[in-house]
Amino acid sequence: MSKLRFNITMTLDGYVAGPNQSVENGLGEGGERMHDWVVPLKTFREIHGDEGGGETGTNDDVLRESFENIGATIMGRNMFGPDRGPWGDEPWKGWWGDTPPFHTPVFVLTHHAREPLVMKGGTTFFFVTDGIESALEQAKEAAGGKDVSLGGGASVAQQYLAAGLLNEMELHVVPLLLGGGERLLDNLGSGVKLEPLRTVEGPGVTHLKYRVVEKGASGTDGQRADPPKV
Amino acid sequence: MSKLRFNITMTLDGYVAGPNQSVENGLGEGGERMHDWVVPLKTFREIHGDEGGGETGTNDDVLRESFENIGATIMGRNMFGPDRGPWGDEPWKGWWGDTPPFHTPVFVLTHHAREPLVMKGGTTFFFVTDGIESALEQAKEAAGGKDVSLGGGASVAQQYLAAGLLNEMELHVVPLLLGGGERLLDNLGSGVKLEPLRTVEGPGVTHLKYRVVEKGASGTDGQRADPPKV
Repeated sequence: MSKLRFNITMTLDGYVAGPNQSVENGLGEGGERMHDWVVPLKTFREIHGDEGGGETGTNDDVLRESFENIGATIMGRNMFGPDRGPWGDEPWKGWWGDTPPFHTPVFVLTHHAREPLVMKGGTTFFFVTDGIESALEQAKEAAGGKDVSLGGGASVAQQYLAAGLLNEMELHVVPLLLGGGERLLDNLGSGVKLEPLRTVEGPGVTHLKYRVVEKGASGTDGQRADPPKV
Repeated sequence: MSKLRFNITMTLDGYVAGPNQSVENGLGEGGERMHDWVVPLKTFREIHGDEGGGETGTNDDVLRESFENIGATIMGRNMFGPDRGPWGDEPWKGWWGDTPPFHTPVFVLTHHAREPLVMKGGTTFFFVTDGIESALEQAKEAAGGKDVSLGGGASVAQQYLAAGLLNEMELHVVPLLLGGGERLLDNLGSGVKLEPLRTVEGPGVTHLKYRVVEKGASGTDGQRADPPKV
């Protein structure tokens, strides 16, 4: 069965982006350092179109696995770009240039309709305005039996976790504190049940992989606010 | 050189105690589940005076190591007990009965002076009112060349981390979300620098051990509030 899989780099204090995200600083202040472990890797270079070179080893094996058997991608608009509200006359085309590193159909959750955007290298951005379940249905259809990758960010991941729609989550935990920004595992109460699948220790990062075995926001402070209108 | 070492069980969403801690529920709502991994262990049973039985294996090895070469313990008053303010006529004697599991001198940080409290099994509680540096000096003196264990909770750990006085930190990460309570790595900004020492995967818990290589609260939101007067 096609699974929804999520992997993301998280600091030890739980952040997946630093404070004050902007066009110049898409991962927020201090956020770029989170990705020091991934940028030199062979697989990272390959998906970004840099053939040849790059590090192999444990971290590369984990990263490569995260792209295996992925047929479609879902992300929130906050991950797609820094702007908010209506798209305007010269709409944002993503952080990633002409050839984004997804190489699959990408379903972007937004409250503002927009025509699909065809990029090079197999990525087409589709803009989904009718919610996370619809996006997942469309993504599974597009994936043709393969798995769907949830790209992020934190808010969208929380929505899929709370709805019980996420099947696997791998956190690449880096030994940094950011002290502010977007915290991944907030707004979820105590209702999400996880089962450890494996731990892999790589240079400068620990990979913690879980199966999500039970859904749902619960507990005294588990009521999620409405998702932001972006 | 004598080190200050800290180990604590933390949920994947960063909590070391659940919400609404009380006399009946010292670890807060849902907090007891955090310790499911540790309670059955041979070492845990031994330090609590239950001779014979208990599980051995990876988790027990990690737990046993955390008690090795420890000559004194430091903890905050929040960890010592649920009451606050002056001690009163029948003061709290700790959560742990007549024979606490520390078996060393224990220095309790508080704003309210009190005579030392001698318990069975080698534990004596000393109440320190002149701050974390003084407590560490007294603990190192008492430890006689061995290391000092920082017992917790979150607030005291944050103070030692921010002051650059903690040398090693091991987090026993359990696959639970609590959604509220005391978060360990809050109020620290981005200034604390950690270096991974090792990762150990045990049944139901992953042990992440770090060396603290640089001190300090920093960054835009790194200003700590004054420690609570407890």
